[in-house]
Order: sequence, then structure tokens, then C-alpha cells
Amino acid sequence: MSYTLEQLAAKVQGVVKGDSSIVIHKLGTLENASNNELSFLANPKYQNQLASTSSGAVLVKSEELAQLVDNAIVVSNPYLAFAQLSHLFVPITQGWKGIHQSVVVSLSAIIADSVIIGPNVVIDDDVTIAEGCMVGAGCVIGRGVTVGKGTRLYPNTTIYHDVIIGENCIFHSGSVIGADGFGFAPNNGSWEKIDQLGSVVIGDRVEVGASTTIDRGAIENTRIGHGVKIDNQVQIAHNVVIGDNTAIAASTAIAGSTKIGDFCTISGGVCIAGHLLITDRVHITGMSMISNSIDQEGSYSSGMGMEPTTKWRRTVARVRRIDEMAKQFSQLKKQVNKFLEKVDNK
Amino acid sequence: MSYTLEQLAAKVQGVVKGDSSIVIHKLGTLENASNNELSFLANPKYQNQLASTSSGAVLVKSEELAQLVDNAIVVSNPYLAFAQLSHLFVPITQGWKGIHQSVVVSLSAIIADSVIIGPNVVIDDDVTIAEGCMVGAGCVIGRGVTVGKGTRLYPNTTIYHDVIIGENCIFHSGSVIGADGFGFAPNNGSWEKIDQLGSVVIGDRVEVGASTTIDRGAIENTRIGHGVKIDNQVQIAHNVVIGDNTAIAASTAIAGSTKIGDFCTISGGVCIAGHLLITDRVHITGMSMISNSIDQEGSYSSGMGMEPTTKWRRTVARVRRIDEMAKQFSQLKKQVNKFLEKVDNK
Amino acid sequence: MSYTLEQLAAKVQGVVKGDSSIVIHKLGTLENASNNELSFLANPKYQNQLASTSSGAVLVKSEELAQLVDNAIVVSNPYLAFAQLSHLFVPITQGWKGIHQSVVVSLSAIIADSVIIGPNVVIDDDVTIAEGCMVGAGCVIGRGVTVGKGTRLYPNTTIYHDVIIGENCIFHSGSVIGADGFGFAPNNGSWEKIDQLGSVVIGDRVEVGASTTIDRGAIENTRIGHGVKIDNQVQIAHNVVIGDNTAIAASTAIAGSTKIGDFCTISGGVCIAGHLLITDRVHITGMSMISNSIDQEGSYSSGMGMEPTTKWRRTVARVRRIDEMAKQFSQLKKQVNKFLEKVDNK
Repeated sequence: MSYTLEQLAAKVQGVVKGDSSIVIHKLGTLENASNNELSFLANPKYQNQLASTSSGAVLVKSEELAQLVDNAIVVSNPYLAFAQLSHLFVPITQGWKGIHQSVVVSLSAIIADSVIIGPNVVIDDDVTIAEGCMVGAGCVIGRGVTVGKGTRLYPNTTIYHDVIIGENCIFHSGSVIGADGFGFAPNNGSWEKIDQLGSVVIGDRVEVGASTTIDRGAIENTRIGHGVKIDNQVQIAHNVVIGDNTAIAASTAIAGSTKIGDFCTISGGVCIAGHLLITDRVHITGMSMISNSIDQEGSYSSGMGMEPTTKWRRTVARVRRIDEMAKQFSQLKKQVNKFLEKVDNK
Repeated sequence: MSYTLEQLAAKVQGVVKGDSSIVIHKLGTLENASNNELSFLANPKYQNQLASTSSGAVLVKSEELAQLVDNAIVVSNPYLAFAQLSHLFVPITQGWKGIHQSVVVSLSAIIADSVIIGPNVVIDDDVTIAEGCMVGAGCVIGRGVTVGKGTRLYPNTTIYHDVIIGENCIFHSGSVIGADGFGFAPNNGSWEKIDQLGSVVIGDRVEVGASTTIDRGAIENTRIGHGVKIDNQVQIAHNVVIGDNTAIAASTAIAGSTKIGDFCTISGGVCIAGHLLITDRVHITGMSMISNSIDQEGSYSSGMGMEPTTKWRRTVARVRRIDEMAKQFSQLKKQVNKFLEKVDNK
Repeated sequence: MSYTLEQLAAKVQGVVKGDSSIVIHKLGTLENASNNELSFLANPKYQNQLASTSSGAVLVKSEELAQLVDNAIVVSNPYLAFAQLSHLFVPITQGWKGIHQSVVVSLSAIIADSVIIGPNVVIDDDVTIAEGCMVGAGCVIGRGVTVGKGTRLYPNTTIYHDVIIGENCIFHSGSVIGADGFGFAPNNGSWEKIDQLGSVVIGDRVEVGASTTIDRGAIENTRIGHGVKIDNQVQIAHNVVIGDNTAIAASTAIAGSTKIGDFCTISGGVCIAGHLLITDRVHITGMSMISNSIDQEGSYSSGMGMEPTTKWRRTVARVRRIDEMAKQFSQLKKQVNKFLEKVDNK
């Protein structure tokens, strides 16, 4: 895995400034890269690091910036170029090839020739896995599941029966797709389970983080659009619908039947109530609680940042009495206005 | 899996209106069901969908409503009836029967004849699994565990040593029962582990969601009552006690030694501090923080819903200065009252 | 597993009061221990339980307290002594010895002789596992991973490629170490994955809870210091650095590139934004949102405890209008002051 600067520039339609023959072995940060590493400048606030960087070359967005280092690739979007070049430097992540002999696979499963399946994977009846897929060790793929081509399941991922997965998806370890939605009917003080008869349908190019859970629908399907990116520890309840290219950061929970639009970005630690409609291009900041539908694109928040605990306690004590304060304020205002009116009328 | 309307009505003590011989293949929603599907009307706000539904029949709660569709089953509680009928339409979720040959089971384990154990399950010494249980592929059941009859463990569930599980429970994939509670004694700036010597005892008819964790007790046991329903990604710390029929939604965390009563409903994203007592029939709304015991039944909250970010920032800035505002207000009130008093006394 | 009181006292440099020959079989609580169990009094508020306890002996911190029971061990720190003695009472948690025959282990892996590996474990190429380690059933250890001596991995733990783990660590079931950080570059409305080329480096004596996820770095490594204790369901994003002996409670999430100092204690349900610096000895209370760096040691908060829902709703309604109230208040203050000035000047 080493490339000349010229080769890398060609991959991202960039222009080399400096020595195009130098060999790059790795990607690095401006701060710590060594002279056989390529780094990037995406955020102008780090521009002063160009003077001191030891990196072999830097991805920059103008010739002017390129002047500040010995070797550079000039591209319109250095961050995107960096992402594209990152694909060239992925190490071999696992040593298994083909279908490991320990795999338990149903006779009725259809597995394409090029599929790699790690040790101790279990594949139930009527599963279809398309070409180019990788299934990590210990994964369990339930009855009737379909996996589109080029999809990767990291070890110990669990896919329940009848889930449909698109092409070029990535599922990280510990993710669970298609477990029962949380549905019960009250029955004389106890709970009658509502068997969850829908499934989960996942589009193409979806990434699902480690320990993330996406529940199957109660009657119809939970649906995840194309290009959706979901971080770790996210909970997506039954019958949720997520639009294309929406990104959801870690530890967020979305309750049942909520529909989220396309191109939304949801930060970490957010809770979204059930049965809501969130339109396209909504951004939700960290730790917000969403309890109403959102029909206007834009940014929404309800998280409140920390203060020193002693100050915060005084704040909370005042907030708890804000209703009383507001009433007293209203009364005082009336009193004052009435008095001033009287004075004016004299 | 198909039934006449008459057969389905009999299962839920309902009365058929219309053609009792039509055959139902599936359950569906009022909005999308086709003519061989049965749907239900539980929430009056969807009543107008009765006119337009294409479903073969509808579960309704009165003859009056039954008049609005061609075929109906009249029952006192359509939602409960729907839950009961859902059990009839569960597909075969896995193709394995009996004990798969790849299972690693200790010679000292006692497994009832009717138990189904999927591939690559590992069962340690002195485990007892009662009749009618299903253990999904890749589950690991630790030394000395007892599983009551009819309990289902979905794939890749992990049960630590000595956990006791009741009858007819369901554990979803990625759930971990009996890991060590988080207990350490400070020791000169580092932490001395307190080995967790208790276990977890789980009642009958408990459901545990995907990636949910229930820790073993430090000295005594963590205890989950009968009929408790726990959603995905829930954390239950050591020595927590949860009363019968309490339901806990996703991504909630309950800290150590807290006792929660019977028939409570805890919404998603809630955090409950340790060493608290929550009485019976308490409802906690989403994303609340519970840092005091609750001795009165009723509904409790502390989550604050979102606003547009720019407005929210102004709100937060004001809240941070509320203590100062309250003091100034108090001063102004005194000033005004003193002045008005003086005026009155003239 | 039974010891005389004398033996136990010797382990913790304590002094026996009473009968040093009594035999202790178990640890217990003051409230429920029986006469062959040892309990402890750490919190003075439980001192009144000494009179009524049935425990065979009690760990106390003074001779004065020892007088209140028949048998005691006097130590300077009973809670720490209890922690130390807990190690003596751990039952056998698993029945496997050596390397189970079902294990799939690469020929290039180096496994020390004394290592115990449970059934169905998968160990990829170039893995090194040092002496005294225990690897539970169903664990998957990726290519090139190094595990230091004495480390325990509970069943169904997943370690991605190239992760480096120190000595005497504990990983609980369902934990996932080294999954891809959440990194994407926007690309015309869709997301270009940034392959995560760093790894995770974990120090000695680290404990990682069930279902906790620690992502690999984007370019450089995510780093967890020595003696760090992490509870269940915690999310640690790429390039986070956590200092020595910091403890993190359940369901907390730490976003990318944040650096946390030594000896911090972070309560449950906390969200910490990315790219922050948190200094040493910071305590963060439950459910706080940290969106700014912290450069002073001390306690920080933003969680607000619950109230009855009807009262809380009034509070929230007032908080939403606090900006308006503050403006009106400011205006009223000016009005009053102006008037009072005028009066004074007369």
C-alpha cells in the first residue's frame, strides 16, 4: 500500500505542486505525519500548521496554500479527497477467504461465489447473499434474509428473519437488525405481546454502527433509505422510516412510527418521540428531545450545556419557581403601571 | 396461516358482522391492508379511515362502527384482540429443530427433550433448560444458569453464570444478562474492583430487548419481576429491583440499588439515579432525569422539547442568568412596595 | 471458599475483635447476612444496623464500632477491605479449561500456554494473547490484535483488527472494540466514507462494560489510559483519549477527538461533544451535556431533576417565554428607576 504523489493526485483529479515522485505509505495528520505520509488541510483554522508540518505532502484547496509546503496536491475539496484516498490505505482486516469450513449454512441458502464467510457464521433457510459480500465470524443471518451485493457484516452481527438489506452496506459488530418492536396491549394490568409481523428494509450504501438496533415493524416494515449513516448505540424502533442520506450520531433513540426526511443530520444523545413527521434537511443538535413534528427545515435544539454544579443548582432551584416568579412579575407590572397611570392622570 | 373471519372472531370472543366465511391471510393497517387482510380501529381519531379502507375486515368496538365497513369483528377491546390474533400469524422464524449438532453442551447440563437449540450455542456446566425453550444460534449460557419452560433466547444472547430465568420469557439478540455490576472502591487514586457476587433473578413472562444489559448484584441479586417488559438498549445496574408488569422503553438507564414498583411505565431515554425508591403506578415521560425517590403514583417529567436553535440559544442564555434576574426582581419588588407604602402613608 | 475471621483479617491488615476462629463462607449485607457471612459498615448512616445484624462478623473502621457487634475486623477503610476480600469469594464462572477443541485459531496466532479459550472463539492471523488470559465462548479477535497478560474477555466480545489491549483488563459481553469511527465527507448530498485507519490502544487494568463500544481512530489511535473503568452501554468515539483512572458510568457517550484527563468521574447518561479538552479530576453529574472544554477541576452539571408532569409543563411553558419575560422585566426596571429618580429629584 504505497503510491506516488502523482498516482494519488490522479485518483482525486488534483494537481501536484512539488515532487510528484515521492512515495506515500500512509495518511496522517498535519500535526503528526512523517515524511512518507499525506495529510490534509480542510479547516482554515489549522492553516498555521502548514509551516511546521513534517508530512511528506498535504492536500490543500489552493495554489496559494500549496506554496506554504514542499509538496502538495491541490483539489477543490481536500476533505472529500482525503476521504476518497482513505479507501486506498485500508489494511487487510481479516485473514479468512471463501467460506470457512466451520460455517453452518442451510441447504436452501443461495450464496454467491465470491462471498467471504468467516468462521462460525450461521445462515438459516432461504437466505440470499449476493456477490462480493463479507460476513464476519459469528454472525447469525435469519431465515429468508436477503443481502445485496458488496455488503459487509462485521463479526457477531445478528440479522433476524426476513430482513432485506441493500447493496454496499456496512454493519458493525453487535448490531441487531429486525428484533421485535416494543409492542404490547394492556390486558388487565399485564401486557399482551403484539407479535411483530413486519420486517426491516434497508437501502443501499447504509452504514450501521456497533451495538445499534433497528427493530422490525409491527405490521408493515421499518424502512431505512439509501445512503443513511447510523453511528453506534442507536435505537430505531418499529415502523420508523428514515429518508435517504440522513445521518444519525451515536446513542440517539427514535421511537416507533416516526418518519424522518432526507438529508437530515441528527446529533448524538437525541431522543425523538413516536408518531412524528420530521421534514427534509432538519438538523438536530446534541441531546435534544424532539416531541413534536418538524415541518420546516433548519436547526432545532433543546440541550442545555453544563455549568459548575453549585451555580447550576441555584439555576435549577430558580427554574423550578419560574411559574411563581412570572406570576409575581406580572402582578408587579400591573401594580406599577396602574400607579404610573394614576400619577400621569393627576 | 389463514383463517376464516369466523375462526378469528371465535379466538377473541368477538361477533362477526358481514361475511364470516371470508379468509384472512394476514394482519394489516386500515390504511394499507388488502382484501385478504384484517385490520383494526383502536384510536377514534382514525375512524374516518373506515370509509376508505380496502381491508377484508376490521376489528371494531361497536356495531355502529361495524356498519361502516363490509366485514367486521366486534369486540370490547380491538387493540387487545389484535394483539391476541397477532400470535396466529407469526411466520417460522428459524429452520433448526432439536439440538443442532454443532452445539457445545456440558455433560452436566440438563436440557429438556423438547428444547430447540440453534447452531454454535454454548452451554456451560450445571445449566438447566426446561421444556419448550428455544435457544438461538450463537447464544452462550453460563455455568449454573436455570431457564424456565417456554423461554426464547434469540441469537447471540449472553447469559452469565448462575442467572435464574423464569418461564415464557423472551430475550432478544445482543442482550447481556448478569455481567458484573459497576463497583469499585477508591484506593489511592486507582480503583479496587468489587467482585460482583450476586446474580440476576428474572420472573416469568419477561421480555428483554436487543442490546439490553442487566447486571448481576454486588452481594445480593438484581431482581426483575413477573411480566416486566424491557425495550432495546436499556441498562439495568446491579441490585436494581423492578416490580411486576413494569414496562421500560428504549435507551433508559437505571442506576444501582434503585427499587421500582409494580405497573410503572418508564418512557425512553430516561435516567434514574441509584438508591431510589419509586412506588407503584408511576409514569415517567421521555428523557426525564429521576434523582429523587417518588412515593406518590402519577406522572413525572423533566424533559424539555426542542425549539429552533437560535431561539433556544436565547432561552438558554436567559436561563443561565435566571438567578441574577430573580434577585434583581426581588429587589425591584421591594423598592416598588416600599415606595407605594410611603405614598399610601402620605 | 471459606476462611476463618483471622485469615480474612490478615488479608486486609485488620485486627480481629471477638472470635477469630469463626468460619466465613460468604460476603453479605448488614441487613441480610447470616451468621457465616461477613458484612461491612462503610457509610455511617447505616450504623444503627449494627445492633440488629445477624452477620457472623462485620468490617468496621474503629474499635468503638467493633464493640457494637460480637465479631469484627477493624480496618482503616472497610469499603476497600470489603473490595479486597470480594476477590476470595468469586465462584467458578465457567467450566472450560485450556483451549476448547472448537476454537478456530489462525496458525500465525501466538497463544501463551496458560490461556483459557472457550468454545467457538475465533482468533484471526497474527494475534498475540499473553499468559493468564481468559477468552470467553463466542469471542472474535481480529487480525493483529495484542492482548496483555491476565486479561479476561467475557463471551461474545468482539475485538477488531490491530487493537492493542494491556494487562489485567476485563471486557464484558457484547462490548465491541475497534469498530469504525463515524467519519464521512459530504459529497453532493451523499456521504463519502472516511476509512478509519487508526486503531484503539487500551492500557492496563481497564474494565469495559457490557455492550460498550470504543471506536478505532480515523488516522491516529483512540486511547484509553491505565486503570480506566467504563460501565455498560457507553459509546467512545474515534480519537477520544481518556486519562488514567478515569471512571465512566453507564449510557454515557463521548464524541470524537475529545480528550479527558486523569481521575475524572463521569456519571451515567452524560453526553460530551467532540473536540473538547476536559482537564484532570473533573466530576460530571448524571445526564449532563458537556459542550465546552473544562479547564478547572471540580463538579459540573446540567441535568434537571423531575417534577410532577403538570407542574413541569407550566415550568417549561414559562422557560420558553423567559426571553420575553427578561425583556419586559428590564423595561419595567428602567421605568421604575426613571420614575423614582424623578421623584427623588423633586
